[in-house]
Amino acid sequence: MRQAGRSLPEYRAIRGTESILEAISHPELAAEITMQPVRRYGVDAAILFSDIVVPLAAIGVGVEIVAGKGPVIAEPFRSRADLARIRPLEASIDTAYVLDTVKILRSELDVPLIGFAGAPFTVGSYFIEGGATRTFAKTKSLMHNDPALFMELMDLLADLAIDSLTSQIDAGVAAVQLFDSWAGALSRADYQRFVLPSSTKVLAALEGTGAPRIHFGVDTGEIIDLMAEAGAEVIGVDWRMPLTTAALRVGQSTTLQGNLDPAVCLAGYEAVVPEARRILAEGAVARAHIFNLGHGVLPETDPDVLARLVEFVHESTRL
Amino acid sequence: MRQAGRSLPEYRAIRGTESILEAISHPELAAEITMQPVRRYGVDAAILFSDIVVPLAAIGVGVEIVAGKGPVIAEPFRSRADLARIRPLEASIDTAYVLDTVKILRSELDVPLIGFAGAPFTVGSYFIEGGATRTFAKTKSLMHNDPALFMELMDLLADLAIDSLTSQIDAGVAAVQLFDSWAGALSRADYQRFVLPSSTKVLAALEGTGAPRIHFGVDTGEIIDLMAEAGAEVIGVDWRMPLTTAALRVGQSTTLQGNLDPAVCLAGYEAVVPEARRILAEGAVARAHIFNLGHGVLPETDPDVLARLVEFVHESTRL
Repeated sequence: MRQAGRSLPEYRAIRGTESILEAISHPELAAEITMQPVRRYGVDAAILFSDIVVPLAAIGVGVEIVAGKGPVIAEPFRSRADLARIRPLEASIDTAYVLDTVKILRSELDVPLIGFAGAPFTVGSYFIEGGATRTFAKTKSLMHNDPALFMELMDLLADLAIDSLTSQIDAGVAAVQLFDSWAGALSRADYQRFVLPSSTKVLAALEGTGAPRIHFGVDTGEIIDLMAEAGAEVIGVDWRMPLTTAALRVGQSTTLQGNLDPAVCLAGYEAVVPEARRILAEGAVARAHIFNLGHGVLPETDPDVLARLVEFVHESTRL
Repeated sequence: MRQAGRSLPEYRAIRGTESILEAISHPELAAEITMQPVRRYGVDAAILFSDIVVPLAAIGVGVEIVAGKGPVIAEPFRSRADLARIRPLEASIDTAYVLDTVKILRSELDVPLIGFAGAPFTVGSYFIEGGATRTFAKTKSLMHNDPALFMELMDLLADLAIDSLTSQIDAGVAAVQLFDSWAGALSRADYQRFVLPSSTKVLAALEGTGAPRIHFGVDTGEIIDLMAEAGAEVIGVDWRMPLTTAALRVGQSTTLQGNLDPAVCLAGYEAVVPEARRILAEGAVARAHIFNLGHGVLPETDPDVLARLVEFVHESTRL
């Protein structure tokens, strides 16, 4: 359960007032924050406390994460000259703290650790827009106005993701997740032409590592078959699409992950149970289904509801 | 092309500094703003200058439309006691100005006028959240926590939409659009259980009027067949789904409307043409397709691009 930390009192107690990017840069703290939801909820895997903009910040593109706003980029991508700002990531130097966090967790955790990176489109959209967006106006404008430049940017951001994910696997993560959170804002035609090639490149580069690859986005009903084509073993499904539909679209060789609307968790445990039961039943049509929320945990979620949900899923799926 | 006005210099010239709800309440001004995009673009229909929160404001629920934020409701819906705040709309008194605007336009316009209302879910989400939301956390929480109360709220908001749309038809609009802009944020199961009944009620109440009914939302790939079931002659399709896919999902008796991503218009006319050509070709598989943007015009759109787009579509579809 991604971003589970922020609804936990023990998270708020140790996070202090420094920025998220600063917190991520302290391996002992980042490892502790990663472990908190595992301890509290007894989930079957941990997801690294980090952020998709970490590699971009680490190569010197000025990024801040502002509370309530998300990533803010002081000098957004504007023209061809900005390509030069994306230099290769030397992970052992630039993001040594991430690798140190992974190493601590490898010895502390009893469950597999999932590393992650942002997919080129989603990271690129922050870079181009300068922050979060509802319309992706500048991103789509660049895409259609200067397709060659857009594709070069995607390709450089693919290399950045590959360098980051490879270094995390080398340091010991058991699986990796590629977050293309906002790919669902695109038309199918645009996804296929402008985004699929770079995400395929990232996933292909990891094929030999043996680490299972999870490919995630929200709102991806119209592109989920293409996202599966990109090469991951596991595809994230938000709550819009029943897993029965998702299973038909991605084919039988792909594992599905997700499907519970995080907002339902706000309605209390009694409301969550029938939803979880429906999702488990629908997930049974897939080759395999990893129960999860369809998106990050909402900050106002009651930790007890999540704890009881994990218990319910464990009891329901016990062999 | 909805919200086409806000990208026009002639709109900014006459809008003044008063709020949108105030501008809507002046029939001469609202009629003029309605006609501006028709004159500028030569589109085949006009859409009334109004807002989906007008009926709610007209029955005394305090609503403001704040620039950059959208509707803001001072006292959001919290509990059963708030149901009493939704009294029946006496359109000839409460929204007399809307009907006067329609009457002016009936004599001034050479093209059909489209009236509209917000669907119960979308209006209800503003009422419950107190404004725009990304997560619909409070709305979904109420839905699952107190389904009976949620359904009563939807039913009252259905009556509000019926009263508003019926009065607009009586005053002379040629067609009506039911905006369920945010229904695509729901799971299919939630849409079917919590939203479909009230939207069906609204559309059924208009069946005898003879006015064609358009049912619109964004992000509706997983529910578009249900939205079609609700009874409209025309279904809006944003840009995510190709019209070929939409046609299969809604069946051959429904007309499709939309499909061009408004953000593509920001990339310039040369970028728009291949997209428009693709959409016209894909739309040919449907029983009928009304070319349109998949969502409102973005404020930063160049009016010349839209004017040339309309010309291109007219030339491409001339018999």
